[in-house]
Amino acid sequence: MHADSPCPVARSADLLGDRWALLVIRDAFDGITRFGDFQRSLGAARNILSDRLRRLVEAGLLVQQPAADGSAYQDYVLTAAGRDLFPLLVALRQWGERHRFAAGETHSTLIERASGAPLPLMHPQDASGHPIASEQTIVRKL
Amino acid sequence: MHADSPCPVARSADLLGDRWALLVIRDAFDGITRFGDFQRSLGAARNILSDRLRRLVEAGLLVQQPAADGSAYQDYVLTAAGRDLFPLLVALRQWGERHRFAAGETHSTLIERASGAPLPLMHPQDASGHPIASEQTIVRKL
Repeated sequence: MHADSPCPVARSADLLGDRWALLVIRDAFDGITRFGDFQRSLGAARNILSDRLRRLVEAGLLVQQPAADGSAYQDYVLTAAGRDLFPLLVALRQWGERHRFAAGETHSTLIERASGAPLPLMHPQDASGHPIASEQTIVRKL
Repeated sequence: MHADSPCPVARSADLLGDRWALLVIRDAFDGITRFGDFQRSLGAARNILSDRLRRLVEAGLLVQQPAADGSAYQDYVLTAAGRDLFPLLVALRQWGERHRFAAGETHSTLIERASGAPLPLMHPQDASGHPIASEQTIVRKL
């Protein structure tokens, strides 16, 4: 729809502006690889899940490969481009934690494996590595 | 749909897993405030745009206020919760720049106002402020 847009947000939104696509990517980061496991996790209808997996494979975010356990299954695994969505997933998570939960309501937490410490809030940064607010930025159009 | 999910990604995706919602938020960060200006920017049908603006107001990401210029118009302006989506917009943009454009294909650029320098790639960080990869993290479920 925005495949020829000069705006990177628009091109990303065309693919990722879909709740099921985002949840499939989330589950893939959590280590889910099998159709049936995605289906159990998401509670999505088979046709919806099939469609989203197919689109994400076509877009190069997931790849199908023979199952790691030697069975006849195919695994869906994140590609390098898919793994590059980690900042997007962290941004969705951290915004949700702050604005979609009531005070005291519990939620899952993204932690560092080695230390168990929760990841601090992610900030866009300026060229010197200091956090930068949206008001300090502007989009230079073509 | 996932209003009672313990997963912050799921709750965010319910609201933001929609290309029009993401593009309305993008335009609001760019300073667009009027229905007609959103419509011209997005090329969305009136009913779709009305629906998305209404949902974003109901969710507390946009607020309607009397026009800054004293006219009879209502402006749609980001709330503090809406402005907290800046990292999400940066993540969408930076992923799109890397993976939705061919080599040499031009795109708009997010720059620091003061210096004109493009924002560097945003990374999730560990508690010490070092970039952290997804493989070094895990989601602690409830």
